[in-house]
Amino acid sequence: MSLLEIELIRHVKVDGDSALYGSTDIPPLAAENGRLVTQLISQQNTSKAYQSIISSPLLRCQSLAVEFSQRCKLPLEICVDLQEMNFGIFDGVPFDSIPFDSEPKEDVKLDKSFLNKGIEQDKKQTVHWPLLEAFFQSPATTHLPKSEGLAHFHERVIQAWQTIIKQQVIIAGEQRAHDVQSKVKQPKNRRVLVVAHGGVIRMIIAHILQLDWQQASWHQQLQISNASLTCISLSQPYDNNQILQQLTTIAMPFLKEHD
Amino acid sequence: MSLLEIELIRHVKVDGDSALYGSTDIPPLAAENGRLVTQLISQQNTSKAYQSIISSPLLRCQSLAVEFSQRCKLPLEICVDLQEMNFGIFDGVPFDSIPFDSEPKEDVKLDKSFLNKGIEQDKKQTVHWPLLEAFFQSPATTHLPKSEGLAHFHERVIQAWQTIIKQQVIIAGEQRAHDVQSKVKQPKNRRVLVVAHGGVIRMIIAHILQLDWQQASWHQQLQISNASLTCISLSQPYDNNQILQQLTTIAMPFLKEHD
Repeated sequence: MSLLEIELIRHVKVDGDSALYGSTDIPPLAAENGRLVTQLISQQNTSKAYQSIISSPLLRCQSLAVEFSQRCKLPLEICVDLQEMNFGIFDGVPFDSIPFDSEPKEDVKLDKSFLNKGIEQDKKQTVHWPLLEAFFQSPATTHLPKSEGLAHFHERVIQAWQTIIKQQVIIAGEQRAHDVQSKVKQPKNRRVLVVAHGGVIRMIIAHILQLDWQQASWHQQLQISNASLTCISLSQPYDNNQILQQLTTIAMPFLKEHD
Repeated sequence: MSLLEIELIRHVKVDGDSALYGSTDIPPLAAENGRLVTQLISQQNTSKAYQSIISSPLLRCQSLAVEFSQRCKLPLEICVDLQEMNFGIFDGVPFDSIPFDSEPKEDVKLDKSFLNKGIEQDKKQTVHWPLLEAFFQSPATTHLPKSEGLAHFHERVIQAWQTIIKQQVIIAGEQRAHDVQSKVKQPKNRRVLVVAHGGVIRMIIAHILQLDWQQASWHQQLQISNASLTCISLSQPYDNNQILQQLTTIAMPFLKEHD
């Protein structure tokens, strides 16, 4: 029997040039964000109502979470570790402004000194396409200068996820016990909305499916669209303490198209 | 630019006891199947219209495909290799009738002679829970007597998928060339519906994401619900012959709930 449903929603499109946005705190497109809030609010009158919200602190997630929380009087928790990966010197730099330099300069070429280090470089470093392309082809082994690194990002997100699960399972269990004691005829499942980023959602999916998050194909072949919903069902299948996490839907378009 | 969209839909619930249905040709629940056909037909008036249908030959898929095809005059191809895995002596046997025998009989115990053989056994074999449980825990290494075997199933489905892709990419390319020649202002993407089974859809997803289809977690932690839609976008990203397959949505509930 399902105990708890957690749904991960990716923020809407951001209000800026096409770029790799990680730590850069860019706002969401106001109109789309507003439509998404409206849609979430109207869903609160159905069996799909959420009881609680958790959000990344970045504006493109938090603005949605705060407005939805205030208008529906839902508890909101800001979880710092749910923010997107820091992409270092590429973070927020418009793709259009990145030079197609096929001969990277001495201080930024993809040599082994950058690989898997996860430390900041002091030298002046400049962005260029070959390095970004190398990162897309092999995100786990290509370290973008001054970035967080994929392994650190993975660890941070999964630790945050495990903390969320632990807390929410306790709350859902207490809610169920209360429902049983109060003899509620049709106890509702606890449903929690998590507002987060594409990379964060992809890492959580890989964790649940026990997949290799280092594989480039995992990052290239699965699209997590803006305003898409990924649904996770948590249950205690046997009479023990083990919690089974199952994905029931990945990246479902949620924001309805304009009428 | 996307060239082609292929959407995989799983059949609706079947009209029978809860069981492992593979080759057993059980019909779908007529009412649900009818509602799904109606919903697909009404979608044909939108930008999400399909141009062609491909289906598994089994009744629970084919009945949907045939009715949709006839009512909308869409070409239909029956692809024998898209049928579900054959689960051998467990195929179609109601779970309720499988004995909870913790001491499997001599001729069916999980010994090494069954593993990875993929051949039919002549001895009388009976179903029992421990063997089924072993299969759920490790589907790639536990061979159910008289079953197809996961490796053979994987190979069959992926070969069929690759043939489908090859054919559909050619047709989509011809359609696009025709649109360019006829100066069509807003050329439409080719959209194809594939009606198939849970195991088949899961294998195709694993193939596109280049994941380990032998991993038990892949089969246990990802639910492909009845009447859910999984969407694949195919494109030629660079000016070469390589076709990029990307998953845009996995297991989205498609059949609307009753009003």
